[in-house]
Amino acid sequence: MAPKKLQVGAAGLGRMGKRHALNFLNRAPRSQLVAAFSPDPEEIQWAKQNLEPYGVTLYTKYEDMIQHPGLQAVVIGTATSVHAEEAIKAMEKNLHVLCEKPLSINLDICNEVVAAAKQRPHLKVMCGFSRRFDESYRAAYRKVENGLIGRPSVLRSQTCDKHDPSGFYVEYASWSGGVFVDMAVHDIDLTLWFFGSDVVPKSISAYGITAVTPDLKKYNDFDNAVGIVEFHNGKIAYYYCSRMMAHGQEDVTEIIGTEGKLSVNLNPQSDLVNYYHAGGITREVPPHYWGRFEQAFVKETNEFVDSCLDDTPLPMKLSNAVKAVQIGAWLQESLVSGKQLRFDETGRRVEAAKI
Amino acid sequence: MAPKKLQVGAAGLGRMGKRHALNFLNRAPRSQLVAAFSPDPEEIQWAKQNLEPYGVTLYTKYEDMIQHPGLQAVVIGTATSVHAEEAIKAMEKNLHVLCEKPLSINLDICNEVVAAAKQRPHLKVMCGFSRRFDESYRAAYRKVENGLIGRPSVLRSQTCDKHDPSGFYVEYASWSGGVFVDMAVHDIDLTLWFFGSDVVPKSISAYGITAVTPDLKKYNDFDNAVGIVEFHNGKIAYYYCSRMMAHGQEDVTEIIGTEGKLSVNLNPQSDLVNYYHAGGITREVPPHYWGRFEQAFVKETNEFVDSCLDDTPLPMKLSNAVKAVQIGAWLQESLVSGKQLRFDETGRRVEAAKI
Amino acid sequence: MAPKKLQVGAAGLGRMGKRHALNFLNRAPRSQLVAAFSPDPEEIQWAKQNLEPYGVTLYTKYEDMIQHPGLQAVVIGTATSVHAEEAIKAMEKNLHVLCEKPLSINLDICNEVVAAAKQRPHLKVMCGFSRRFDESYRAAYRKVENGLIGRPSVLRSQTCDKHDPSGFYVEYASWSGGVFVDMAVHDIDLTLWFFGSDVVPKSISAYGITAVTPDLKKYNDFDNAVGIVEFHNGKIAYYYCSRMMAHGQEDVTEIIGTEGKLSVNLNPQSDLVNYYHAGGITREVPPHYWGRFEQAFVKETNEFVDSCLDDTPLPMKLSNAVKAVQIGAWLQESLVSGKQLRFDETGRRVEAAKI
Amino acid sequence: MAPKKLQVGAAGLGRMGKRHALNFLNRAPRSQLVAAFSPDPEEIQWAKQNLEPYGVTLYTKYEDMIQHPGLQAVVIGTATSVHAEEAIKAMEKNLHVLCEKPLSINLDICNEVVAAAKQRPHLKVMCGFSRRFDESYRAAYRKVENGLIGRPSVLRSQTCDKHDPSGFYVEYASWSGGVFVDMAVHDIDLTLWFFGSDVVPKSISAYGITAVTPDLKKYNDFDNAVGIVEFHNGKIAYYYCSRMMAHGQEDVTEIIGTEGKLSVNLNPQSDLVNYYHAGGITREVPPHYWGRFEQAFVKETNEFVDSCLDDTPLPMKLSNAVKAVQIGAWLQESLVSGKQLRFDETGRRVEAAKI
Repeated sequence: MAPKKLQVGAAGLGRMGKRHALNFLNRAPRSQLVAAFSPDPEEIQWAKQNLEPYGVTLYTKYEDMIQHPGLQAVVIGTATSVHAEEAIKAMEKNLHVLCEKPLSINLDICNEVVAAAKQRPHLKVMCGFSRRFDESYRAAYRKVENGLIGRPSVLRSQTCDKHDPSGFYVEYASWSGGVFVDMAVHDIDLTLWFFGSDVVPKSISAYGITAVTPDLKKYNDFDNAVGIVEFHNGKIAYYYCSRMMAHGQEDVTEIIGTEGKLSVNLNPQSDLVNYYHAGGITREVPPHYWGRFEQAFVKETNEFVDSCLDDTPLPMKLSNAVKAVQIGAWLQESLVSGKQLRFDETGRRVEAAKI
Repeated sequence: MAPKKLQVGAAGLGRMGKRHALNFLNRAPRSQLVAAFSPDPEEIQWAKQNLEPYGVTLYTKYEDMIQHPGLQAVVIGTATSVHAEEAIKAMEKNLHVLCEKPLSINLDICNEVVAAAKQRPHLKVMCGFSRRFDESYRAAYRKVENGLIGRPSVLRSQTCDKHDPSGFYVEYASWSGGVFVDMAVHDIDLTLWFFGSDVVPKSISAYGITAVTPDLKKYNDFDNAVGIVEFHNGKIAYYYCSRMMAHGQEDVTEIIGTEGKLSVNLNPQSDLVNYYHAGGITREVPPHYWGRFEQAFVKETNEFVDSCLDDTPLPMKLSNAVKAVQIGAWLQESLVSGKQLRFDETGRRVEAAKI
Repeated sequence: MAPKKLQVGAAGLGRMGKRHALNFLNRAPRSQLVAAFSPDPEEIQWAKQNLEPYGVTLYTKYEDMIQHPGLQAVVIGTATSVHAEEAIKAMEKNLHVLCEKPLSINLDICNEVVAAAKQRPHLKVMCGFSRRFDESYRAAYRKVENGLIGRPSVLRSQTCDKHDPSGFYVEYASWSGGVFVDMAVHDIDLTLWFFGSDVVPKSISAYGITAVTPDLKKYNDFDNAVGIVEFHNGKIAYYYCSRMMAHGQEDVTEIIGTEGKLSVNLNPQSDLVNYYHAGGITREVPPHYWGRFEQAFVKETNEFVDSCLDDTPLPMKLSNAVKAVQIGAWLQESLVSGKQLRFDETGRRVEAAKI
Repeated sequence: MAPKKLQVGAAGLGRMGKRHALNFLNRAPRSQLVAAFSPDPEEIQWAKQNLEPYGVTLYTKYEDMIQHPGLQAVVIGTATSVHAEEAIKAMEKNLHVLCEKPLSINLDICNEVVAAAKQRPHLKVMCGFSRRFDESYRAAYRKVENGLIGRPSVLRSQTCDKHDPSGFYVEYASWSGGVFVDMAVHDIDLTLWFFGSDVVPKSISAYGITAVTPDLKKYNDFDNAVGIVEFHNGKIAYYYCSRMMAHGQEDVTEIIGTEGKLSVNLNPQSDLVNYYHAGGITREVPPHYWGRFEQAFVKETNEFVDSCLDDTPLPMKLSNAVKAVQIGAWLQESLVSGKQLRFDETGRRVEAAKI
């Protein structure tokens, strides 16, 4: 008898939602995409051509989709503002949940999702941070585990996007939570991975500029920002995020230990080609995160499916996702206010003046 | 109604056969693996666990498998010695064929397959050369097509394997055809791609040594060999193949044109990690070709399926595969004899003395 | 008639003093080293063998050396604590001065030197920052001047030393001024070069740890430190200094502009050799700054000599050297206090609370 | 008393002659350039401004210069056709000789120089091959000596020049000896260094094209050529030389051993800058060999001087220089004739047919 496949529904069919749906449909052999939801007629149109012929039932109401007979899991790739609500509704229907990051840019709402998940420990609820599934980051992590760099002590990480002159990111800033919540949250998550999820911030400082998109100011956002998080256990992480790169996506991480160092993607490249010409030697760079992390998303899909079917632990904890957003929000607060934030050893916020 | 999927049978479930079977099963959404064949009980045992549960019927006779109801195509990953026979039998059953390289190490047999395919132009018959499906080689090819390097004139290409101290390659040499047929055939195929499949050799010379595996001599093979093919249209290709690499797989190609140059994989790497330690900065290298070309095999699978279902041209011609083996065999002849081979402008072999 | 050579005296013959003396003796064709001073008998012993035979008169008192007949210039490579005093005394004897950095770790004393130099505009007085003379930094600077990266907006720079387990750096910390004054001063100087020397800090924040040398704490110093300087004109510089590198010296700079980016030494290397072995591919890294900047020091020597002989402008202003130390001292203050420093648009220090 | 400096005369003040003269004048502390010769009025004019003021006596006849009082050594940088004659005349005057490569493109003449030198073992006579003095090649050699790659077995080396569209190289080909004598001689010399100078060729084959400079054919030369030298002790070297590079000078060497591999300059670069722009990431390449080997020439100068003054062995043997030219000439013969050359174990040329 054929092994049972995880029956999955995909919520949201925008840019990232489509990719999730197709990954579950085509690139996760143990899953079966049986349902998909979008409120958007254009997206439904796309789904009629690309999903429906393969046995996927389409829905225009989320509540309907999660009642699809036999459904076991949902992947949520809708607008951030409805992630949490949809995740909780899915859990209420006893469905496993893979939710695109972030759960919410509002911490209280994030925590509601975590609380809901805690009440249903038999469900697998994951907020995917793609870099955790990337081969290179995993190879680096194994080296750390094997003690090759001693005790990780300083982490530098950056998320730098190719400049998009269309103005899209101005509107986007109105609801994205700002660069540290939207972009650096990946770097923060890596920090929690490499330093341990129990690290407690001691101080947080951040500074930014609007070098190419001055209109970002109206939403209190920046096109370049630098931040430092000092932790109580003698570790430091520092971040750079930018939407100004001419050359493409450049997400770099360095983990500096007491006995060695690791770098990941220090020399970004689209492929293994070098072009030699009168101006020198040139290699290209992926224009977007998909060019860098496509295979990580495939692995995320498959590992989520395995965990649901085999009832094995997920590769990352939901609470981490919330903690990363929390630190991102603090960095953003410091960025906007220009003030340093301080915390005591229990993680409680204290007045800078009192330190 | 669900789109029809290509009904595929997999012949041979050894190392590469397993990979082909799994690619058609799991990584080619438009294909359905319905049958598999192996004469080997261990391989059948593996298939009972990994294929049968997903609806794949298992056969221990090739002739039986190709009569599987509804079968439309076979992927042949058996021993090289039966590739040609199986390919021809499949065509006789009106099946499309994707055959692992080479069709045969015997040129006459290769040509029989080509002749059989010519008689059935409605069938798609491909001998896969993985590098043709690799993103980096394709990016390089597009740059050539766009004129970025002028007229390609010199091609350097190497296939270098990690040293395997087990002695496996000694026995292997007894039937592999030798390093130029087994390894450099990929580099020769690239030459036909980048220089054009109509190039005519003018002279062929090759030299080799047995630096770490002297036993290879008994089968007239070498662990390191260098060869040059001079073409009549003023182009030169030169090759290096080795089974002696300490660090891993290192397949490098340079295409040198009148106005620029392209390199592919000049700096091999397993991933994007650099490790900094007291001895310097180190990156790792894939131990085997699978680490370098896994995604190329996936693309090969999908493009073959598309071509069968949509009746579109295959991305490479079967005759090229034979021509690559032919040139490989000549290089091997020169390698063993120590003599230069020469050809007139029609490609006819001539005595060196007559030139 | 032979062109006149600049008659130079070298003060201090410690590690760096020796190098300066030898550069003026052997690698600056338009200079003649005629005198050298050291209070240290061992250094004088070295000089008897290495300088005296070439016509260099040795002195054990600085005041005596600067009275050497015909002397035109001094290079000061003594202990930092006497740099300023010796520089001023030299100017009083009408001598040009090339002073190893820093003039002093005390800002008031630095300013005294600048004031003394302003009174004698015919004298060339330079505090050398070696990176200004490095071919790679100059190539980067030319690209900025040519507009290749648009408006430089963010600068990342690090000075990272190979870990020295001898404990030397603990004592050294008692008088070095701390990591930001001793190490990051180079990165700050680069900032003044690439952003313009008129940039005005808006805020300064720094954080540090003692990961491998806890004894540094007794001198209020750190073995790893990160700092951010925000400038009033919408630019940001951020720095990392470390004495913990396992692999060697790693001084990296990135200049990020509105239309492009430049990196300098992102992939440090001792030479052009890669070593391929069972563990991967390894390149070595220079253990010390001399391995990276030797040729820059030679160029510094020659350009100083040219400027003295030809009465042409020095390649960098003395006031910049003081400004770099000032910013370094502020970073160090923030590092030790854990507090953010703030400045108004005129550069005047203001209370954080008042912002 | 001042240590005695080697009294040197420079013969020839063309492009390379000027560089040698200036190296002895300014960058070799233990040498004193006292004389210079050129038959060319323009070069003498240059010398009046750049050498004479520093105490260098100028001569328009070589025979006069070598009688300069107190002269101890000459550096010969004249036209290749007079190298040998001038070297022998210098030896007859009891002068040490540093001769720019090659001694001659005629082997008999080369051997006359070697014979003359053998008669005067107290003289230091060196034909400089710059790569022997390059830090990177030396670092590679030390690794080989330390056994890091086992037994060197295959050597790949290329000398590739930036394309010069001026037509200069056509005339040059009439007397340069051809690409293997003029360019690959460096790669051959490296082979003798890394494989040992006692290696005996077994066969030699070479092939070439004229891809961008068809006029080279009239002098039997090529703008791209590939050659293989098989040695009797189970080693192989293969070479590529080209005058067609769009990007600059690219001299690469790989030494492949039984247990590891070394590469030198696999990724050529002018400096440590990377430029990130809309088309990707670009680094520049030195346009000429001077950009790659300037410091090697300085070291060559100083080591020659040390050897003369201290009567220590020269770092390379004169006979090697001849052997490199001999192998280069054989490669060139094969290149022009299209025939393989063969040699018995004593190195005696045998007919291909007899093998």
